[in-house]
Amino acid sequence: MSLKEDGPSVAIVGVTGAVGQEFLSVLSDRDFPYRSLKLLASKRSAGKSAGGSISKKFGPIAVDKGTIVVDNSSAFRMDDAIPLVIPEVNPEAMEGIKLKSGKGALIANPNCSTIICLMAATPLHRRAKVSRMVVSTYQAASGAGAAAMEELELQTREVLEGKEPTCNIFKQQYAFNLFSHNAPVLSNGYNEEEMKLVKETRKIWNNKSVKVTATCIRVPVMRAHAESVNLQFETPLDEDTAREILRNAPGVVVIDDRAANHFPTPLEVSNKDDVAVGRIRQDVSQDGNYGLDIFVCGDQIRKGAALNAVQIAELLL
Amino acid sequence: MSLKEDGPSVAIVGVTGAVGQEFLSVLSDRDFPYRSLKLLASKRSAGKSAGGSISKKFGPIAVDKGTIVVDNSSAFRMDDAIPLVIPEVNPEAMEGIKLKSGKGALIANPNCSTIICLMAATPLHRRAKVSRMVVSTYQAASGAGAAAMEELELQTREVLEGKEPTCNIFKQQYAFNLFSHNAPVLSNGYNEEEMKLVKETRKIWNNKSVKVTATCIRVPVMRAHAESVNLQFETPLDEDTAREILRNAPGVVVIDDRAANHFPTPLEVSNKDDVAVGRIRQDVSQDGNYGLDIFVCGDQIRKGAALNAVQIAELLL
Repeated sequence: MSLKEDGPSVAIVGVTGAVGQEFLSVLSDRDFPYRSLKLLASKRSAGKSAGGSISKKFGPIAVDKGTIVVDNSSAFRMDDAIPLVIPEVNPEAMEGIKLKSGKGALIANPNCSTIICLMAATPLHRRAKVSRMVVSTYQAASGAGAAAMEELELQTREVLEGKEPTCNIFKQQYAFNLFSHNAPVLSNGYNEEEMKLVKETRKIWNNKSVKVTATCIRVPVMRAHAESVNLQFETPLDEDTAREILRNAPGVVVIDDRAANHFPTPLEVSNKDDVAVGRIRQDVSQDGNYGLDIFVCGDQIRKGAALNAVQIAELLL
Repeated sequence: MSLKEDGPSVAIVGVTGAVGQEFLSVLSDRDFPYRSLKLLASKRSAGKSAGGSISKKFGPIAVDKGTIVVDNSSAFRMDDAIPLVIPEVNPEAMEGIKLKSGKGALIANPNCSTIICLMAATPLHRRAKVSRMVVSTYQAASGAGAAAMEELELQTREVLEGKEPTCNIFKQQYAFNLFSHNAPVLSNGYNEEEMKLVKETRKIWNNKSVKVTATCIRVPVMRAHAESVNLQFETPLDEDTAREILRNAPGVVVIDDRAANHFPTPLEVSNKDDVAVGRIRQDVSQDGNYGLDIFVCGDQIRKGAALNAVQIAELLL
């Protein structure tokens, strides 16, 4: 980042958390201009990013005082009056919000799984209109914060030493295991993480009719999510065209080398800005090129959280 | 196992491999009757189960000599003349094969992912007929043999010590990572593991019209596979009925506690006979109870290989 007289005053709330720390790194990498920088965190929450309750309490107060708040919590995402934005996907949702108007505003950052999925699905959706999407996720520890990453590492050491694994953040063994996402399960049997994918997709695509189902699973990986996405289209889309579309999509890199069996992995996208897409193939369970299967990986802390939020701020500059 | 004058003569080929070792344990647990036992393995393949080339070479010779061969390789699975059997699913495919007829026969054991998926999907299929199935797998190291399990452990130690991970079995880091299944990728973009799920399902269900797509992923888990399965039915099936059907299905255990967020995990089914099913819920992306999402876990070495083969043999007794 660089000090600029006419840059905005920047404040980061929850700066000691995994996402908070990444904000600093992203702002620095991107040479984000600022006039002043405030780093905010409570002693009690050291090591944690601020959550929904902090956003609900202080977000509206900051907006009243003329601040533009980019909120990474789930507090306002489904509020009709608040734009939910992936800059490569729906920048138009932010129209009317101006940095130097003196008028405050709140913009919501989507959930990490939604961002990573839609970075790949949207360019295809624009061409052939997605009618239905079946998503299975392979989610990293980082989505549950820095302490969850530490617990995965600690548990792994313990298991390798033949000890009982310490379960503080998660109630079951995470090392060499996987489990249904720890978000609360709703009355329809989906957990909150899954319903975020369902609902946020509809809002971001401004399309109430798109059908989405998701199964969200935590896997013992540190900081990047993977997603297996099955797509059904309203008009045919062949895999070569899809690959070409994705190659030209901003923020997307195609890794799809069948001969070398080289496809996206969480490790390869860790600490990277781009979302990687591969395993692009015509779905054999659908006739006439109306379906595709793809596999997507993205850094959960970076594009799934901090980078996307900073890109939202950059749209305002 | 127990020595019985009128029991069959049993031979295990590839007994030093992960599956071979499990055969001994399953035969012993189930008190399998035998007159004599031959354990076969080559020095060159110590620690590995016998693969398709051994089956192709020696399988027909053994059959000619009057042996009933239960083959765990992929060599004969798609051969129209050879039954492909999951005892709980399609025992009728073995009709006509008799132990004491003196006539040899070959019976193929399905691929591990297929067995685990169909143990859960078949009882639902019987009630409401599955028209389409979208599967994403979370596959353990054991599917690639004992050496792969050792490599995952070794790599994990190395990564925790800040060392470069040793990549002998897999060409990329497996510890704290995941990747597209290492089976060769075919010209349609699916890998062989995925096409096994597509084709074996059709053969086992004796239903050429069922549509299946699969994305197979290796995750850093030791010996049990997990699968996220999205089902479309020809007739409506509500989730309560589905749960009841699965509770009564042989070889299946339902773990589906939404309030406690307790669902199947690979660790919980490791070394267990039963396949566990949970996350049973009406698919929100399909209208009128025509769809369900489920999450299935099963021990890859046990029900995914050795146990299923021994059950096939038991059907003959």
